[in-house]
Amino acid sequence: MLTLCVRHVLSRRLSSFTSKHCTRRRCSTSHTDGLDQASTLLRLCVDRHYISPGQTNIELFERGMCCSYGPLGMELRKNLLDQWWHSVTRSRAQVFGINTLSSSRDKAVDELGQLRIIESDHLKQILDKKELSKNQLIQEVHMFLQRSPSMRRSLLQGALEEFVPSLELVNKKLPFGLAETGPCFQPSDGSGCPSEVTQTSLVWFCSPRTSSQWLDHWMRQRLKWWRKFALSPSDFSSSEVPEEELEEAASCGVRITYNFPWGPKSLETLWSRGNAELLHVHKGVRSKLQCRDGRKSVPHVVSITGNMDRGAMAFLSNSLQELKREDGKQKLLQRKVLKLHPVLAPVKVALDIARGGTMELRHVCEGLLQEFLEAKISIWPGYLETLPTSMEQLNARYDEMGVLFTVVISENTLESGLLQVRSRDTTIKETMHISEIRKFLSRYISAADNT
Amino acid sequence: MLTLCVRHVLSRRLSSFTSKHCTRRRCSTSHTDGLDQASTLLRLCVDRHYISPGQTNIELFERGMCCSYGPLGMELRKNLLDQWWHSVTRSRAQVFGINTLSSSRDKAVDELGQLRIIESDHLKQILDKKELSKNQLIQEVHMFLQRSPSMRRSLLQGALEEFVPSLELVNKKLPFGLAETGPCFQPSDGSGCPSEVTQTSLVWFCSPRTSSQWLDHWMRQRLKWWRKFALSPSDFSSSEVPEEELEEAASCGVRITYNFPWGPKSLETLWSRGNAELLHVHKGVRSKLQCRDGRKSVPHVVSITGNMDRGAMAFLSNSLQELKREDGKQKLLQRKVLKLHPVLAPVKVALDIARGGTMELRHVCEGLLQEFLEAKISIWPGYLETLPTSMEQLNARYDEMGVLFTVVISENTLESGLLQVRSRDTTIKETMHISEIRKFLSRYISAADNT
Repeated sequence: MLTLCVRHVLSRRLSSFTSKHCTRRRCSTSHTDGLDQASTLLRLCVDRHYISPGQTNIELFERGMCCSYGPLGMELRKNLLDQWWHSVTRSRAQVFGINTLSSSRDKAVDELGQLRIIESDHLKQILDKKELSKNQLIQEVHMFLQRSPSMRRSLLQGALEEFVPSLELVNKKLPFGLAETGPCFQPSDGSGCPSEVTQTSLVWFCSPRTSSQWLDHWMRQRLKWWRKFALSPSDFSSSEVPEEELEEAASCGVRITYNFPWGPKSLETLWSRGNAELLHVHKGVRSKLQCRDGRKSVPHVVSITGNMDRGAMAFLSNSLQELKREDGKQKLLQRKVLKLHPVLAPVKVALDIARGGTMELRHVCEGLLQEFLEAKISIWPGYLETLPTSMEQLNARYDEMGVLFTVVISENTLESGLLQVRSRDTTIKETMHISEIRKFLSRYISAADNT
Repeated sequence: MLTLCVRHVLSRRLSSFTSKHCTRRRCSTSHTDGLDQASTLLRLCVDRHYISPGQTNIELFERGMCCSYGPLGMELRKNLLDQWWHSVTRSRAQVFGINTLSSSRDKAVDELGQLRIIESDHLKQILDKKELSKNQLIQEVHMFLQRSPSMRRSLLQGALEEFVPSLELVNKKLPFGLAETGPCFQPSDGSGCPSEVTQTSLVWFCSPRTSSQWLDHWMRQRLKWWRKFALSPSDFSSSEVPEEELEEAASCGVRITYNFPWGPKSLETLWSRGNAELLHVHKGVRSKLQCRDGRKSVPHVVSITGNMDRGAMAFLSNSLQELKREDGKQKLLQRKVLKLHPVLAPVKVALDIARGGTMELRHVCEGLLQEFLEAKISIWPGYLETLPTSMEQLNARYDEMGVLFTVVISENTLESGLLQVRSRDTTIKETMHISEIRKFLSRYISAADNT
């Protein structure tokens, strides 16, 4: 069955490809093909400096955890977090950003899987106390543990705590939201090593009777957001959380999932949580929590929690195209292109010198580089490279990096001011005047941002 | 002596103030005055939603640690981190951003003050093992501790680890730098509670013979950067670290300090670190670390580490002016203004309706709000406020929030399209057409950014 499927794909690929006609490699029914795609993706991510090498690191990334990112992965996740932030805080006037601590001194919390941050020395000092009996020792370690700050597993608790000071800010008027992004820590799944996730969180406070409408509203907004940056939007989907998987406090929930080659995984979860947790955090003092919506009720909470490490991987997976085409001489060429959305692409433009570059050309490059840096367009200084590489090899590398455009400066540029611009998506090379290139790129990126 | 000083300041203030003539309240010789200024600053930070209320939180903030930030503080620190990022990664082509984990599984590390993240349950399970003798118990806890990930105290270690994969990126060419920002965790100073700091880090790799020039270069750059955003730049200064305070690995260091009302505190430290740590992290394998600078030497490291929680507080402290002036009726008016630099100010513009606002005016506000949000100008939706407040009270509040401009829409706006714009810094009110306001603000902010 599997073999059949792979063969079908392969034959379809080989037969349907003519020059300049490309298709996407995707076969959701084949597990082998999925694993194959996954390993291609992970290899590319390491080779092209999206993530740092090393098996442990790659596994973290694959599991949707925070890992060591190389320059490109770091920039991609940063772009994603920026987009999330703009979309959430700028969609409505009533969303405020906050920043809470990643560790909390709240002694009341002690649930299953609690992570605590401790000073080794202090614990060792207790262990070294020769005068203690075994029971006394156990007692002291328990007390020490109780005093140690706990690490947050989500950003929810912090937002619930910030509800009261924020109420004053909005004059006790509902609805409003508190947004935050930051690292959260999750207990190990048996490996003994807790792990880190970069979460995004919007906690939305609204009147009890509107909470289900708001859950709907945010679900539509969020799905639209994920799809906006996708090459193949249908891989992002939403579904209601089945009753048996509901979080304790939640009455209903919706999940946004991405269909990875290795199966669907959740990117963001929206919960309608009622007001029990809010009351619990504020020790049941209703008077502190009441708003001016006529009925003086305690607001209900809708939480929207995303995992941006997995989000970054979803867009990498979604944008990787393996293209094959025959060139004029009937040779089969293979090309891997990371067609990341222009606002997400970590490098917008690579700057290179045609073969036989002189010092004069380097000066032109340095001028252009400065111009791009000032316009906040991220640029790859390919001209600094001292190893000779063919233009074809360079293009292949930039395509794998997801670089939007490659600009090549040549002797001709010194005479006429003209340079060559190659597009990642069309592979077409255009000639453009050096004075126009920055504006062209700015316009291209902002046009992609506004669609 | 103290009383004399305070009286001197007070009398100077009262005599020299005429209408529109203001002076700054600062008396570095008086400790009382310093404490007074500190408490004014902290009170304002809580009242105006820079930081969350609560004694513990305020103390964290005062000590230059990460605390719970309200919407304004969160935005201020975000602006500061963005500026740092742009200044460092865009100053040169050879600076790359990275992202490393805040906890490390490296078992070799076990220095004094080591923080570890543990799962309470696991430790409790060990304590519950009735069959263990006291010594066996101690043994097991030690092993458990050894297996637990350690929390990073700085971003240096991560950058040193990323050196090898980055070498390939730059074709083994020096110099280059790795930039990162993120939370770091510091052992307690006796309180038993470790704390969190938002660090910025640039780790610069260069040839041994150039390291002292680079230390100089970055010191000048960094001091210039801090002073760029200051109202009174001389409060930011640099000094060499005395030999007895040098970090173990460092041969020399420079500190950038801010002169807080309660004394000078370090904001950023630059160390010339040699290459011992780099060799240590990579287990002495010189061949992996060598670069192509002719001599195949192991690079030297210059580290530049900042504390952006304290940095945010420095700018708050630096920009707080307490102004007094007599109005026409010889009444003494007191005004507190947070004159934050335009690019740092968390709210650029507040949008309000003149008394007696109608639904129509609210619609105008919503249109303008959307326009500002799209232009990424952070706006305060004052018009949503339903409690009646006088324009004077509003201005006083916005000045304390550091809002650059206040825009007031009135009935007149509906007829003529004109609105009123008040500047925080000049207190002058101008009339402007509604179609011009966004451009005016964008220009104002970008002009301030480029000076």
